[in-house]
Amino acid sequence: MTLKFPTGFRGNGVHAGIKSDPGKPDVSLILSDREAVAVGVYTQNLVCAAPVTFDRALTPSESIRSVVINSGIANACTGSQGDDDVRQMAQWVAEACKLDERQTLVLSTGLIGSHLPMEKIKTGIDAAAANLSSDEAALDRTVRGMMTTDTVPKIRGREFQTGGIHYQVTGLAKGAAMIGPNMATMLAVVMTDAPIGLRAAQTALQETVAETFNCISVDGHTSTNDTVLLLANGAAGGQPTQGRTLEGRPLDAFRATLYEVCEDLAQSIPADGEGATHLVTVEIHGCRTRAEAVKVGKTIADSLLVKTAIAGADPNWGRIVSAAGYAGVPFNPQKVSLHINGMLVYERGAPVAFDAEEVSKSMAENRETSLLLILDEGSAAARFWTTDLTTEYVRLNAEYTT
Amino acid sequence: MTLKFPTGFRGNGVHAGIKSDPGKPDVSLILSDREAVAVGVYTQNLVCAAPVTFDRALTPSESIRSVVINSGIANACTGSQGDDDVRQMAQWVAEACKLDERQTLVLSTGLIGSHLPMEKIKTGIDAAAANLSSDEAALDRTVRGMMTTDTVPKIRGREFQTGGIHYQVTGLAKGAAMIGPNMATMLAVVMTDAPIGLRAAQTALQETVAETFNCISVDGHTSTNDTVLLLANGAAGGQPTQGRTLEGRPLDAFRATLYEVCEDLAQSIPADGEGATHLVTVEIHGCRTRAEAVKVGKTIADSLLVKTAIAGADPNWGRIVSAAGYAGVPFNPQKVSLHINGMLVYERGAPVAFDAEEVSKSMAENRETSLLLILDEGSAAARFWTTDLTTEYVRLNAEYTT
Repeated sequence: MTLKFPTGFRGNGVHAGIKSDPGKPDVSLILSDREAVAVGVYTQNLVCAAPVTFDRALTPSESIRSVVINSGIANACTGSQGDDDVRQMAQWVAEACKLDERQTLVLSTGLIGSHLPMEKIKTGIDAAAANLSSDEAALDRTVRGMMTTDTVPKIRGREFQTGGIHYQVTGLAKGAAMIGPNMATMLAVVMTDAPIGLRAAQTALQETVAETFNCISVDGHTSTNDTVLLLANGAAGGQPTQGRTLEGRPLDAFRATLYEVCEDLAQSIPADGEGATHLVTVEIHGCRTRAEAVKVGKTIADSLLVKTAIAGADPNWGRIVSAAGYAGVPFNPQKVSLHINGMLVYERGAPVAFDAEEVSKSMAENRETSLLLILDEGSAAARFWTTDLTTEYVRLNAEYTT
Repeated sequence: MTLKFPTGFRGNGVHAGIKSDPGKPDVSLILSDREAVAVGVYTQNLVCAAPVTFDRALTPSESIRSVVINSGIANACTGSQGDDDVRQMAQWVAEACKLDERQTLVLSTGLIGSHLPMEKIKTGIDAAAANLSSDEAALDRTVRGMMTTDTVPKIRGREFQTGGIHYQVTGLAKGAAMIGPNMATMLAVVMTDAPIGLRAAQTALQETVAETFNCISVDGHTSTNDTVLLLANGAAGGQPTQGRTLEGRPLDAFRATLYEVCEDLAQSIPADGEGATHLVTVEIHGCRTRAEAVKVGKTIADSLLVKTAIAGADPNWGRIVSAAGYAGVPFNPQKVSLHINGMLVYERGAPVAFDAEEVSKSMAENRETSLLLILDEGSAAARFWTTDLTTEYVRLNAEYTT
C-alpha cells in the first residue's frame, strides 16, 4: 500500500462548522493540476440527493479539475434550493481555484432533509483551497472531511507499472451504515495519474463497482447520496495508444489495481459497520449465473436472523440455508452444502455431525466470519461482505435523530 | 369475537416433553366429527419442511378430519427421516381417532435441523386424542400447543349469519419472529362450520392470505414451515346451492368474516413481535397497482433504519422516503407525501415544518405507529404491518441457539 496522492492531485480537509466537534473536518477539496477524465457510478435510489443529480449531469467528462465534499448534511430531499446550493458550491470552488464552474464535482453525506449552511460551506471551501497539499497529512485531512459515523479513515493506495512508468491509484471512501448493495451512504473517490480514456474508465469503474462496492451491506438500506467517482489525470505520463487509453495488457494492469483498491475500500466499510463485531464474508458457489449468486448472497447478508446469530457466535446453519431458500433463485435444496469458518456443517440437503462448540468458539474468537454456500447448480460464484447485527447498532440508530 | 370451536370441531393441547417447561403444551390435535373441505397456503421458501411437503400433497381435499401440530422442533432440513416422521405422525392420529391416514394434516414449528422425538410425539398424540373437547379451555390448550416464542395465544373468532343459520369462523395462529411476507414461521388454522365448496374455499383463502398474513413482517425472514389451513366441515348445516358452496351474497358474508379473522390474527403476530415496542402500520396509497404498493410497503417495513427510528420514537421521514426510493417501484419523488401518526411531515417531495417533538411524543406514548405514504401515481393501495427493531430483538436472536 502506498498512501499518497497520485501525481498532479492535491487535497485538503477543514472544519467549517457543519459538525459540532471543531476537531473534525467537514469540508474537503481535491484538485487536479490538469484536466482529468472523470466517470461516476451513482445510487439507484429514486430519491436521490441534489449533488447526485448534479454530478450525473456532468459525467462522464474529460475536463474535471476538482471534487468538493461536505459531511454532516446530505443535501437530500431539499427541493430546488438543494439544486441551487450544489451549483453554488461548484461556483465557489471555481472562484477559489480559478476553474470553469463545470469542472467541479460535488459530494455530500449526512442528515437527509436539512439545507446546507451555505456561509459555513463558503468559508470551508476558501480555507481548504488556500492550503491544498499533496502530502500524506493532507490526504488524511481530505478523507476525514468525508466521514460521518465512520470510526476510521478509509484510504487505500496501490501502484502499478507499465511501459517503464510507475502509476498510482489512490482511493478514499466513507460509509458505516445505510449501506446496502447498489450503494448506500457510501462515497468514494478514486484518483489515478494514469492516462485512461473516457470509455475505458467508465467500463472499468462500472465493472469494478458491481463486484466490490455493490457487494457490501450493513443494513441493506440504499441511500440517497451514494457515489463512486474515478478521476484519471494522466499526470504520470505515458503514451496511450488510442486517445488517452492504455490498451491491452497495460490497461489490464490498471484494471487489476483499480479492482484491488476498490475491493479493499469496499471491505473496509462493513468492517467499520456501526456497532458491528464481525465482518462477514458470504461466498456463494455453484450457481448458474453470477447474478443469481449475488442475489443469494445479498439475501443471506441482509437476514436479521443470520446477522444476529453471528453476533451471538451461533453456527445457526438453519437460518442461513433458509435465507437462501427465499432469495427467489431456483435451486435444488437437496444439493446444498454449507461451510462456516471452513468447517462443513450442512451437506447435500442435510445437517452433518459437527463440533458446534468448536465452530462457535472460532466465531467468537475471530472478528471475521466466513460463510461458504455451495448450490451445485453451475459454476458461477459471488462474494458479499456484511456485518453482524448487534444491540449497539440498534442503539446507535434509534438515537441518531432527524 | 366469539372464542369457541365451530360446530363439529374439538381440540386439545398437551405437554409431550418437546419443550422443557412442563407447563407448556407442545402437541395439539384438532378433530372434525365429519369430513371437512381443507385448503392450504404454504411457504414460498424452496427449503421447506417435511410437514409442508406432506400437507401440500394432501390438499386441497374434501375429506380431512384432523390437524396435528407440534411446537419446539420444526422438522425442517431433516431429509428422508423427516418425511418418514411426518407420515408416522399422521398414522398415529389415524389409529388414535380411527381415521384413514390420509385424513390428517401435520404442522410443525420450532428449531430447524433437529429430528422429532418420536416417542414423545406418540405419547402426546395419544394423550391429546384421549381428551378432545369443544370447550373454550380446550381451544386455549390447542393454540398453546402451537406457540414457540409467542407471549400471548392468538385466537380470533367471529360469527356470520345467512339463510337463518349462524356460522362460526375461528382461527388459531402462532408467530413472533422469522416473519416475513410470503409467510414465515407462522402457522394458522382457520375452522368454520359453514358448507364451503373446495374451489370457493381455495380462492377465498388465497385472496385473503395475500392481503393479511402475507402483509406482515417482523424480520423479513421467510420461514421453512409457514402454513395457513382452512377447514370447512359444514356441520352448522345449510343448503349450498352448488355442491357444498355458499353462493353469491352468502359466500360474500363468509369471505368477509374470513378476512376479518385473518386480518386480526395477522396483526396479532407483529403486535407480539420479539422484543417489539411498536406495532407499525405502513399504508401506501396512490400507487399504480396493488403489487407496487405492497412492494413499497414491504421495503419500508423491512428497513432496519426505519425500524430503529421508530424504536427511538424518531419521526425520521428521510429514512422512510429513502426506503421507498429503493423499492424498485417507479414513481416521481416530487409528488410523494408522508404522514406519521396522522401528522403531515413531508409534502410533494419536500419536508414541511412540523412539530417534531409532538410527533415524537405521540410515537413514544403509543404502542401503535401509523405511516401513510402517498405516491400520487394512481389509485391502488396496500397495508403492511410490522414491528420496530429493538436491542431486545437482537438479544433474543443472538442468544437463541441451534
